[in-house]
Amino acid sequence: MRKNPIMGFPSTSQDDYQLNVLNILRQAARSFGRQEIVSVRLDGSRLRFTYQETYSRVKRLANALTAIGAEIGDRIGVLDWNDHRHLEAYYGIPGMGATMLLLNIRLSPVDLGYVINHAGTKYVLVDETLLPLAEGVAKNCSSVKGWIILTDKDLSQITTSLSPIYSYEKLLAEATEEIEWPFMDEKSACAACYTTGTTGRPKGVYYSHRDVYLHAMAIGNNAEVSNSDCFYQLVPMFHALGWGMPYASILTGAKFVLPGIYNVADLGSLAEPLVSEGVTVSAGAPALFMPMLEYIRKLDKKPDLRGARFLSGASEPSLTLMKGFHELTGAEIVHAYGATETTPLVTINKLKPWLKAELSDADQWDLKRKQGYPVVGLDVKVVDHEDKEVPPDGKTPGEILIRGPWITGCYYNAPGSEEQFTSDGYWRSGDAGTIDAEGYLKITDRVKDLIKSGGEWISSVDMENEIMAHPGVLEAVVTGVAHPKWEERPIALVVPREEYRNKLTKEEITEHLSKKFAKWQLPEAVVFVSSVPKTSVGKFNKKVIREEYKDIYTQS
Amino acid sequence: MRKNPIMGFPSTSQDDYQLNVLNILRQAARSFGRQEIVSVRLDGSRLRFTYQETYSRVKRLANALTAIGAEIGDRIGVLDWNDHRHLEAYYGIPGMGATMLLLNIRLSPVDLGYVINHAGTKYVLVDETLLPLAEGVAKNCSSVKGWIILTDKDLSQITTSLSPIYSYEKLLAEATEEIEWPFMDEKSACAACYTTGTTGRPKGVYYSHRDVYLHAMAIGNNAEVSNSDCFYQLVPMFHALGWGMPYASILTGAKFVLPGIYNVADLGSLAEPLVSEGVTVSAGAPALFMPMLEYIRKLDKKPDLRGARFLSGASEPSLTLMKGFHELTGAEIVHAYGATETTPLVTINKLKPWLKAELSDADQWDLKRKQGYPVVGLDVKVVDHEDKEVPPDGKTPGEILIRGPWITGCYYNAPGSEEQFTSDGYWRSGDAGTIDAEGYLKITDRVKDLIKSGGEWISSVDMENEIMAHPGVLEAVVTGVAHPKWEERPIALVVPREEYRNKLTKEEITEHLSKKFAKWQLPEAVVFVSSVPKTSVGKFNKKVIREEYKDIYTQS
Repeated sequence: MRKNPIMGFPSTSQDDYQLNVLNILRQAARSFGRQEIVSVRLDGSRLRFTYQETYSRVKRLANALTAIGAEIGDRIGVLDWNDHRHLEAYYGIPGMGATMLLLNIRLSPVDLGYVINHAGTKYVLVDETLLPLAEGVAKNCSSVKGWIILTDKDLSQITTSLSPIYSYEKLLAEATEEIEWPFMDEKSACAACYTTGTTGRPKGVYYSHRDVYLHAMAIGNNAEVSNSDCFYQLVPMFHALGWGMPYASILTGAKFVLPGIYNVADLGSLAEPLVSEGVTVSAGAPALFMPMLEYIRKLDKKPDLRGARFLSGASEPSLTLMKGFHELTGAEIVHAYGATETTPLVTINKLKPWLKAELSDADQWDLKRKQGYPVVGLDVKVVDHEDKEVPPDGKTPGEILIRGPWITGCYYNAPGSEEQFTSDGYWRSGDAGTIDAEGYLKITDRVKDLIKSGGEWISSVDMENEIMAHPGVLEAVVTGVAHPKWEERPIALVVPREEYRNKLTKEEITEHLSKKFAKWQLPEAVVFVSSVPKTSVGKFNKKVIREEYKDIYTQS
Repeated sequence: MRKNPIMGFPSTSQDDYQLNVLNILRQAARSFGRQEIVSVRLDGSRLRFTYQETYSRVKRLANALTAIGAEIGDRIGVLDWNDHRHLEAYYGIPGMGATMLLLNIRLSPVDLGYVINHAGTKYVLVDETLLPLAEGVAKNCSSVKGWIILTDKDLSQITTSLSPIYSYEKLLAEATEEIEWPFMDEKSACAACYTTGTTGRPKGVYYSHRDVYLHAMAIGNNAEVSNSDCFYQLVPMFHALGWGMPYASILTGAKFVLPGIYNVADLGSLAEPLVSEGVTVSAGAPALFMPMLEYIRKLDKKPDLRGARFLSGASEPSLTLMKGFHELTGAEIVHAYGATETTPLVTINKLKPWLKAELSDADQWDLKRKQGYPVVGLDVKVVDHEDKEVPPDGKTPGEILIRGPWITGCYYNAPGSEEQFTSDGYWRSGDAGTIDAEGYLKITDRVKDLIKSGGEWISSVDMENEIMAHPGVLEAVVTGVAHPKWEERPIALVVPREEYRNKLTKEEITEHLSKKFAKWQLPEAVVFVSSVPKTSVGKFNKKVIREEYKDIYTQS
């Protein structure tokens, strides 16, 4: 990147001690050996391990992988829910020197096969419930030498077309705990995730041990996780390294709770372990927290979650969500921002002590909707179309550029993607936003999601957030579609909350919007729907929406 | 160290982004720009700066140093109290690519001159109150090209034999804020401290940017400092990098309070800013906290410091000290362990949640006297004389060996010191201790301070801690002196607390000790004194005591 660093006076420090994510668990098992790891099973029962027990299984896993032929530098895929075996893979695979390839279980078979092939994957760990997914892509995965089935059953009870197959548990049972960990260069890739953009093929981000280790320390500091905390891994572990929390939580010695398999139709029940396990910290998205809140609303006895902090990313948390959790449980929703390319922590929205004193209650709530200030460790700037920084006035929009030790510097083997990086090493996020005098970022849009209407710009994200601030709205998405006169005009898809179904009107939505938006900006089309198309990572799939409604203005 | 690391699959991360301590302030000034830095002046008044203002002064400092001829790779000494200019030096000197040499103001002139020369120091920043110290060594410091006087006065009002001299404030006033920071290799030394052992010449530890940056992140995580905290820099900034807190506090966005000059005869008054500035975290030694507690005892209205954590190192905090602070103020004394060679954090003593549930109140207090468990990031082991790990039974003593990215790998230009490192990269601490099943370390002695009596060992540290647990004792030191029959026998020097002066008896001390020690271990000589000889870093100077009392057993 940039230029060559200058060597000053030499140090006496152990600068050749390599950062390695395996050491996080190895050392935490020594210092917090009895801390608990809880994994919820399909039937609701819970497996409990101590850090020491998990570390023992991780040692066996590493030896088992070596025994079947895995080698340093191999890519080993994981297709799994958030459970204890997934966590073991997070340490065992990088520990033995290979790269853990996190596979998104919601990818289309075409994309999933593409990712497995592009990475040159040698083995894949696959949960028994996800066998059909693996079977659907296996014939196109020529590099894969074997499938390791994550199950408590004997292999004879498993019916699958995959071949050859191994039993994860049997491999572990046959392996020894004796291990001498390889001394890996910290620039080796410990894990990889592929981005799932709404356009183009998935692109590979290969995280170094150094990257992930530094990120774990940074998220520990910024999310203020400690040995007294209980972390609940809601965000899928195949998304952006599970937000780094499987490393940060163990680094800080926190209790770690894994929800196991969850049913998209029954997300609310994810709220159950909050009280029974004493959760104090979690990370997820409004798409997860919203149904949990609805579930809690219906409980006679509301859980007491005072002091708990739930990091929320992917999309802006609505005031309804944040206030709802606060009023019903005492828990705080903390908005944070990042991406697959950023490991992912870039900003976190905590209220600075002086702002607590200066801002009214309403302004504090409003501020909480921003993405937050950049964490120390990263260079973050908002630039105009000439890459010049915009004034930090909270108004002037620009593209967000990010640089730092846990930011990707390129995509793996992706010709044509070089333009997403500046010559001085910044990653172009593609997100449009503003930055204010206190350093709080506000994402207003994807650069490509700005609606161009009559030579002016309308922020689709601003508009959908404003609609979601309406008490009767569960979800809303706004996008631009072609218009014969204005080039593009906004359309809003709105999902009403249960009590408001068939009661909300277009007029009510546009009147609500007109408090913040100019008349020319208001959408002519407001469509009430029961759900909104989403991508495999839970983001609004505007590409699909634009396609479905592409004629709505040209026809009329 | 050890062997060459193995390169696995290449990452896409920005692994060439260099860790640099200057970036801590640069980025914190962006994200926490209005946070306060408070510096107490000689007359008790306080200077207040925001992070942004301090960063502005740091930019000017770096330009000023360059303007007078400082270059990348130079060593620049600092002879100062804990004040705002010292903090500026912590960032400005490493920022412009030089190495900040921290000079211990309590060193003898011979050692101070030795350190300045050994480091090849080019410039020295010296506080006007410390001019006599600098003048005393200047003629032997041939490498020094200039002295920069830290004062608010005009240079014409300063009388000194030093030459040439510069005014720090005038240099800053004349410098611009425009700067392009050099892109330093993270293995460059950003700072250096010299150890002040009781034997031999001081030895140089040169900390890399990488070392200090990682340590700052680790101490932030382990001491749980955040933007809501107010840190009070009690530990001298020339000791082991001020325990890394000038970096960790800014990294986490905490308010930062500097006590300025303090009078050794009036340490108690250091307690004043605790309440007036809202201190929540501090770091120091029992030698500082004990007089502060005595001061607080005399106040009519005790300060409410509930939730505050005071890290305490250098020597074991007594139960009197820990309980006293807790009962009078609500503050918690947190025992931690480290050394100049370790940047310094190695262990921290926090009570793990399960121990809170399992241990009696008395056992919890007892546990708090241990040095704590190793922080994640470091390899720590306790080994016997064959370098084999001792069982973690809390009983078997051995030497503590430490390895990790913020541990020194050698001493700078110190032939003969190689034996303090193992072939696989551990630093031999010279401290003897035990480790228990929960990972808590207990330092029982300096390896060389064990008393060899009749072929058995007596722990001098155990014994002095037990004496200090007596409610009438302010301080106690135990050491071995030559004995014609037993080789060595212990002698105890005891400083009674004010109310117990002339009341404590030798019999009371030995009876108190006999609860924990065998009869043959009890000291024949118990001497009541008004103070105990200490080294320049506040540790008991056993070398002096052994010399003074060397004939006590041979004469009798």
